[in-house]
Amino acid sequence: MRFTSEQRLDGGVLEREFTLGEIPGILWTPESASAAAPVPLILLGHPPLGLRKMYPRLAGRARRAAADGLAAATIELPGSGDRPRWAAAEQARADLRRAMEAGKPVGDEIIDALILPLVEKSVPEWQAALNALLLLPEIGGPVGYSGGVISIGIRLAVVEPRIVAAGFFAGSLVPRAMVEEARRITIPLHVLLQWDDEGNDRQAALDLFDAFGTKEKTLHANMGGHTGVPQFAGEDAAGFFARHLR
Amino acid sequence: MRFTSEQRLDGGVLEREFTLGEIPGILWTPESASAAAPVPLILLGHPPLGLRKMYPRLAGRARRAAADGLAAATIELPGSGDRPRWAAAEQARADLRRAMEAGKPVGDEIIDALILPLVEKSVPEWQAALNALLLLPEIGGPVGYSGGVISIGIRLAVVEPRIVAAGFFAGSLVPRAMVEEARRITIPLHVLLQWDDEGNDRQAALDLFDAFGTKEKTLHANMGGHTGVPQFAGEDAAGFFARHLR
Repeated sequence: MRFTSEQRLDGGVLEREFTLGEIPGILWTPESASAAAPVPLILLGHPPLGLRKMYPRLAGRARRAAADGLAAATIELPGSGDRPRWAAAEQARADLRRAMEAGKPVGDEIIDALILPLVEKSVPEWQAALNALLLLPEIGGPVGYSGGVISIGIRLAVVEPRIVAAGFFAGSLVPRAMVEEARRITIPLHVLLQWDDEGNDRQAALDLFDAFGTKEKTLHANMGGHTGVPQFAGEDAAGFFARHLR
Repeated sequence: MRFTSEQRLDGGVLEREFTLGEIPGILWTPESASAAAPVPLILLGHPPLGLRKMYPRLAGRARRAAADGLAAATIELPGSGDRPRWAAAEQARADLRRAMEAGKPVGDEIIDALILPLVEKSVPEWQAALNALLLLPEIGGPVGYSGGVISIGIRLAVVEPRIVAAGFFAGSLVPRAMVEEARRITIPLHVLLQWDDEGNDRQAALDLFDAFGTKEKTLHANMGGHTGVPQFAGEDAAGFFARHLR
């Protein structure tokens, strides 16, 4: 892990870009973080649109985490941003776009082709990033995972014991295999659902919530479409992580 | 409105019992409340089990409100506690119990007979209590309504313009007429749902949430049965009222 840039943001947040092998990433730490007082960490998931495009929203979430005394970090997903294209993923995305534009139901094969390879490739990368981040003296634990492609979050919640709490954005493009995997989650979950999300099937999202195997799970459903999550819902999610990581 | 007793609780809360005509009630105010600094008010709804039985939970909710700088008040429901029995309501409750014990679906006639007269009788009483409470110099506004029989809350949210925000506990024993009335609500709503509530039908509760006409509504679903609402869900509900009443 190599830091490539460093800047101070308003509100006492240190933002550092890094690379981990070929993978770019960003780490935000509150100024209070030190070897003597290491802070917990939230991994910030995001959709595969590239870190540059997602930066404003990621930085907003990171500032909020820092205000609660938490570090936050994210990495570029395979095939996104400046990382090498990935033919199979491009094909799956094109198939998805075609089905949606034609108003056709999106078949299991398309969802599987789109999501499963992304889970297989990216989860070990998040774990490698976690290994490197936890070696920094100012980062302690515990670790949370928040948002992004929900299937990546499901897999991480199942396989990565250092993650003790996760916040998901309920989506419907979830392979059946991942719904089954969701039954094995045992950590506390905080799930956001946008009630009128044009890109998500509400019943599929409710069924997925029902499937999560953990005893402590909370669904927060709010009005509006995919990007219309109200500010207070973000506050509640921040409260969830503060409760479990501090 | 006549105060009949007064005591100071821990944490700077003044608890006063009162009667409004034949109706007993309780008012809790934070010590900070005064004519110079009047406080907002939450009306605390409750199931028809009698104020005495419900006292511990009501006092807990009132203390939490007081900690947020809010007064809280409640009144006995018609036919409950020390108020005169009410033959039709007793009959409807017996019918409900019989249907549930027999494992039969509870028919619309039973639900209507149980709930609609309670709404008709109690809503004007809550409004009369509100009139009296708002004459007290230490109570200002705005006013919220929280919990209890959800159909009473629906009617109050529709007919009482002084109520600016409401928190409901999603229930399935809701007359179809009240589901229709729910479409007319325009104030912000915070709705709690216990995912495994033995006494509630989950789909009916989700359908009711969908029916609420307001643009700002949030559903918080948590694991567990009817009385298993986790503490953090109570915190989130308190946050909702603090946001809208202060």
